[in-house]
Amino acid sequence: MRDFLPAQSTPRQELIAKISASYLSRGFQSIETPLLEDLDRLLSGQGGDNEKLVFKVQKRGEELERAVANGEELADLGLRFDLTVPLTRYYASNHAKLPRVFKAMQIGPVFRAERPQKGRYRQFMQCDIDIIGDDSVSAEAELVIASLAALQSIGLSGATIRINHRDLLKSNIEALGIADSDALAAMIVIDKLDKIGIEGVASELGELFGDAVADKASNWLKELDSKEVPELLRPLVEAVGDSAEYLRFDPTLVRGMGYYTGTIFEIEHPDASSSIGGGGRYDGMVGKWLGKDVPAVGISLGFERIADLLGESGSSSQFEVLVYEPELLATAIRLQSELVAKGRAIRIEKKPKNLKVLLDDMSAAGANQFAILSEEITNIESLEFKPLS
Amino acid sequence: MRDFLPAQSTPRQELIAKISASYLSRGFQSIETPLLEDLDRLLSGQGGDNEKLVFKVQKRGEELERAVANGEELADLGLRFDLTVPLTRYYASNHAKLPRVFKAMQIGPVFRAERPQKGRYRQFMQCDIDIIGDDSVSAEAELVIASLAALQSIGLSGATIRINHRDLLKSNIEALGIADSDALAAMIVIDKLDKIGIEGVASELGELFGDAVADKASNWLKELDSKEVPELLRPLVEAVGDSAEYLRFDPTLVRGMGYYTGTIFEIEHPDASSSIGGGGRYDGMVGKWLGKDVPAVGISLGFERIADLLGESGSSSQFEVLVYEPELLATAIRLQSELVAKGRAIRIEKKPKNLKVLLDDMSAAGANQFAILSEEITNIESLEFKPLS
Repeated sequence: MRDFLPAQSTPRQELIAKISASYLSRGFQSIETPLLEDLDRLLSGQGGDNEKLVFKVQKRGEELERAVANGEELADLGLRFDLTVPLTRYYASNHAKLPRVFKAMQIGPVFRAERPQKGRYRQFMQCDIDIIGDDSVSAEAELVIASLAALQSIGLSGATIRINHRDLLKSNIEALGIADSDALAAMIVIDKLDKIGIEGVASELGELFGDAVADKASNWLKELDSKEVPELLRPLVEAVGDSAEYLRFDPTLVRGMGYYTGTIFEIEHPDASSSIGGGGRYDGMVGKWLGKDVPAVGISLGFERIADLLGESGSSSQFEVLVYEPELLATAIRLQSELVAKGRAIRIEKKPKNLKVLLDDMSAAGANQFAILSEEITNIESLEFKPLS
Repeated sequence: MRDFLPAQSTPRQELIAKISASYLSRGFQSIETPLLEDLDRLLSGQGGDNEKLVFKVQKRGEELERAVANGEELADLGLRFDLTVPLTRYYASNHAKLPRVFKAMQIGPVFRAERPQKGRYRQFMQCDIDIIGDDSVSAEAELVIASLAALQSIGLSGATIRINHRDLLKSNIEALGIADSDALAAMIVIDKLDKIGIEGVASELGELFGDAVADKASNWLKELDSKEVPELLRPLVEAVGDSAEYLRFDPTLVRGMGYYTGTIFEIEHPDASSSIGGGGRYDGMVGKWLGKDVPAVGISLGFERIADLLGESGSSSQFEVLVYEPELLATAIRLQSELVAKGRAIRIEKKPKNLKVLLDDMSAAGANQFAILSEEITNIESLEFKPLS
């Protein structure tokens, strides 16, 4: 978990504002869900491996005492590990007040108890868009277009979206001679293709399912043709028009979560060593809370990786400094208010013994100009602002 | 803890953006601290009664097993209950990279395990400004002016700030014949004045400290003159100029926290039943983590109460709807992008059997216009947008 200095915090806020504005301009609606959810819900099997990374919050007061005495579970709440589980719970709670096709935008922190390592954080921001209540390809197409537009709005060009479909993946796995009940285990192996290569995948599949499967897998992976977009994904590619150039069919794309039921996405950037976003269709998940199935699909941007990618080009908010002698405080405050009313950002600072130390300090903090208040100056017109080098 | 619908979330984001812009325009710098802090720090005695309301986060993995086996504390982290403890820890960690006088703005959620009741939430937003490293009255004056300006920027007029000074309070308590070591206990009683009245306070003080104290307290409270600003607070009142009309000296103002060492503030509004903000000087707290004392003073706005006060006047972001036949999806997406590039907010929607149901839905969600895409329309100029009633 990290502290953000002003030079980091300001550009982060600006990035979030731009992504948010981009999504809102396409009719996505902003929502907020609590950071804590019932632990039972977080651990209901929807979250895959992330469920092992939940920060659990202890019961309180008498409930905690009772749990300790009875040897029961001591935690009742947990910090959310993604925005999808809260969104589907939110939809189940509030759907009567929401449009029939609900296009949601949610931006906020999520938590995973990972071992600290470079590029992995225990608290990090996600920016999600989801469409709930539309089972057609238009939902996927809108999400793809909106995600590409959001990345463009923050000046990140060059991103591509790998796409696949769980049904394609399943029939490919079936063709290898693997039983339907073993499909998820096989997907987990195939997901490692980038890391362990074709022979690695074939060998691991062989260990699990025998040599015949290994041979077939090796042949399948060698003969893969990702140029030919399969029938099932062609409507999506056609719908997005010119943006199709940023889509790339990848028959080995898996996405870890068990809840995906259709199209899956992963957003890549040549400068990033891992994906900067991803998502997919999860038609069964809302039904877990609502009792009836509602189609849903979403794409999540990994905000921290994107912020890291855009680099430390940031700076604090810019402002000007009005330096005053201690006895002129009231005048400094009055003139500050008058300048702020004219749309300027003005910080007032008492004049120290060493003016240069103050000005260096302010320059480092984001100031670009300064003026010194003297007794004769009683209005803003008489102030002389000079550039800070 | 609450879900926020789009019609609530959008105005909340707008309020936060306005408050943030107002503080930045006076040279406060945005920072972010993690939502989780070490439990030891949260429970170090700085947080007063709030320490009883910490949501504790369990240790994980082997550490948890070891703690269970050894009967040790099972939690190692906690959700922050305010922004002040994290700020002072942040300052201690990062002060070398910060300006000598650090003017910080922090906006984010805090957590308290309160029993749910009207107007009290277990997760709520706070908007804090603090000045660290300035022991003079200019810090208090800047915070007062900036807080009043922030409230004005969101259209909340009529707020006043009650002020007092811990030294005044202590000498008043001493004059009642109460020992210095009992001052905090006496403050807790005086703090109830609004609720239990003069006789109530006198009687409770009498129970604790005897009849003589009760008599003196009763006389003191009856003879209070809040018009006469004491010497100690006059520099602040003079510094804020015309804004002094929004300050009101209240010799009985206490503020619950034990860490205050000087001026204390409480922001009131005639339409709010309890305070909408508050703060004070806490010169000893940074020293707890840093090893050397650094003066500090802050004011926190209670965002939820302010949002409640401004009422349900909110609405979702406004947008226009482009309705399309399913086979025109690609055209709809293309025209949407062209309209968005012109600065408009456009939501695309498949034409359903019952158009009226869709349009009512969209109108409720914040749409103000709609157009229907037909096969003949291939450019945005041919689209006819009509108002949604």
